[in-house]
Amino acid sequence: MGERLESFRRLSGQPNRFRESGNPVFERFSELYPLAYEEGALSTKTKELLALAISIVRDCEDCITYHLIRLRELESTREELYEFFALTLVVGGSTVIPTLRRSAAFVEELEEDERQAAEAPT
Amino acid sequence: MGERLESFRRLSGQPNRFRESGNPVFERFSELYPLAYEEGALSTKTKELLALAISIVRDCEDCITYHLIRLRELESTREELYEFFALTLVVGGSTVIPTLRRSAAFVEELEEDERQAAEAPT
Amino acid sequence: MGERLESFRRLSGQPNRFRESGNPVFERFSELYPLAYEEGALSTKTKELLALAISIVRDCEDCITYHLIRLRELESTREELYEFFALTLVVGGSTVIPTLRRSAAFVEELEEDERQAAEAPT
Amino acid sequence: MGERLESFRRLSGQPNRFRESGNPVFERFSELYPLAYEEGALSTKTKELLALAISIVRDCEDCITYHLIRLRELESTREELYEFFALTLVVGGSTVIPTLRRSAAFVEELEEDERQAAEAPT
Amino acid sequence: MGERLESFRRLSGQPNRFRESGNPVFERFSELYPLAYEEGALSTKTKELLALAISIVRDCEDCITYHLIRLRELESTREELYEFFALTLVVGGSTVIPTLRRSAAFVEELEEDERQAAEAPT
Amino acid sequence: MGERLESFRRLSGQPNRFRESGNPVFERFSELYPLAYEEGALSTKTKELLALAISIVRDCEDCITYHLIRLRELESTREELYEFFALTLVVGGSTVIPTLRRSAAFVEELEEDERQAAEAPT
Repeated sequence: MGERLESFRRLSGQPNRFRESGNPVFERFSELYPLAYEEGALSTKTKELLALAISIVRDCEDCITYHLIRLRELESTREELYEFFALTLVVGGSTVIPTLRRSAAFVEELEEDERQAAEAPT
Repeated sequence: MGERLESFRRLSGQPNRFRESGNPVFERFSELYPLAYEEGALSTKTKELLALAISIVRDCEDCITYHLIRLRELESTREELYEFFALTLVVGGSTVIPTLRRSAAFVEELEEDERQAAEAPT
Repeated sequence: MGERLESFRRLSGQPNRFRESGNPVFERFSELYPLAYEEGALSTKTKELLALAISIVRDCEDCITYHLIRLRELESTREELYEFFALTLVVGGSTVIPTLRRSAAFVEELEEDERQAAEAPT
Repeated sequence: MGERLESFRRLSGQPNRFRESGNPVFERFSELYPLAYEEGALSTKTKELLALAISIVRDCEDCITYHLIRLRELESTREELYEFFALTLVVGGSTVIPTLRRSAAFVEELEEDERQAAEAPT
Repeated sequence: MGERLESFRRLSGQPNRFRESGNPVFERFSELYPLAYEEGALSTKTKELLALAISIVRDCEDCITYHLIRLRELESTREELYEFFALTLVVGGSTVIPTLRRSAAFVEELEEDERQAAEAPT
Repeated sequence: MGERLESFRRLSGQPNRFRESGNPVFERFSELYPLAYEEGALSTKTKELLALAISIVRDCEDCITYHLIRLRELESTREELYEFFALTLVVGGSTVIPTLRRSAAFVEELEEDERQAAEAPT
């Protein structure tokens, strides 16, 4: 498994301190969150792309990791993602370039991970 | 015509000082810009939604006006736009609420403008 | 009534298009929102100040108007607000100065409005 | 006098509530501020351009007005400012375009104001 | 000592290049800075929370480390901090979640460090 | 070679996935980019400083690395860079301090690297 994917899974495996805290805001937010991504007039894939765009502009690296994983699960093609990166560059400006380059490298890491999973004996 | 639409059209009607300046950066950028929005693996409508999301998070009011006009020309439905607003609220946080409320009011202004144009004698 | 307060009340009086849309995200969010501001280990006043700080840094003018109104209702003193402005200046940098100056002017508008309400025959 | 310049001068003419408040942070900050802009290894003009770039990216309209006035006083040419706008577009992305267009229109307003001042009988 | 705390202390132990540079802006700023945090109409703890909120929204990881250390020194309870995180989530949006999760993990690291210091033989 | 410089060179040595993708937006953008930095009414050095200021405010660490390397190649002195840091602190606020401290440490890393290159046998 690639380095970024591995480090993300380790983080995700931590206990969810917020849900366990008993503070109702966190519980309600986690109920609300998936509603915003449901298939509807806009597809879940489009919504993940929108969240990814906001995450890039706000420079939230772990958010980017999460949404790219989701987009690969939803079978976003490399061509779709590169058109997404191109648009984000034009609208976001050259300060997003390093983030876009790291994102493109991570897409390859995900593809490699999928290939290995497909080849693994069951 | 509604107030926001009228004011936007007045601004758009101004001479394009940048193109006229002879500085090649502006000319090249305006050639590059439409390429990023072309129909491709992602639709132009999806790309306009992505640009709208970035514009909301960066709080560029005139950009929002422009992309909402484009989205209505591309026949985005109210249902699509409200799902877009809902996602932007969850990802962007409550500080985007006033911008979303003004955007929703502007969508009505655009719909009203379309109705009037449709009814106008030719 | 001062100009900024009047314009804010006019906006607030508009129909709530999001709640009326039937999209469950908006309804859930508006249930969640007040929970975050409840008196608890931190006071509601402290929480309003925190929301105001974020609104200033993200440059959401209508959010600032809303939180300043709330803070005056919670009897924030001018001394508290000026210490808040001073901190925001140091942490936020000189680009927040115009927003802070408009905020201070609006605090006076609110104080004047309170005086007039107190003097009004019932 | 043009509209934006007039409105800026009206705002600047307001009493300085922060300095008058007696809070020492505001006084110290206003002593510190001009030190950062002094002629030195970098010229004051370069420093004003830097402050203008940050103001554009943080979308502080009144800061932009202030720094453009200062830059015209320091005899920044239109060519310098248009190269500045071109760089800001490439680094900042298309979301800064409306701000840049309004800035360019304001530069013309300032030039017109200078012409009128030069022609005025003394 | 936990990893984040150790790395922060190593950074803080570096020579202060800015103060040593002789540039008066840095010296003046470091005199001004503590004035903004003094006990006054608002408590130092409230001011540290405000600085923390701005640091989260601007995504300054080292600022967050610094203000969380300060808040534990000022005896902020876990309950206060979790209400703070809840508010920041609602106002800031889901893009702050990874930062909040890392902050909550760091609070535990600080608590563990305090326990060890309390148990250490003197 | 210092750690930050080494890690930057490793990243820069990666294949340019965007140029190789065939998407014309990336190719056009990379033609446009150097035009914005050309010597003109403003010097290339001033333009690099402007890009650095925007990169700091948008917190793009790799952009900062890149522009600091360029500025040393253009023979920016330490005095110029410290005046730049001082201005950025005043305009940007205390949340940029950790970024500025890391930048100043990196400038020393670059100077050390230059000394070693100068002393190396040819």
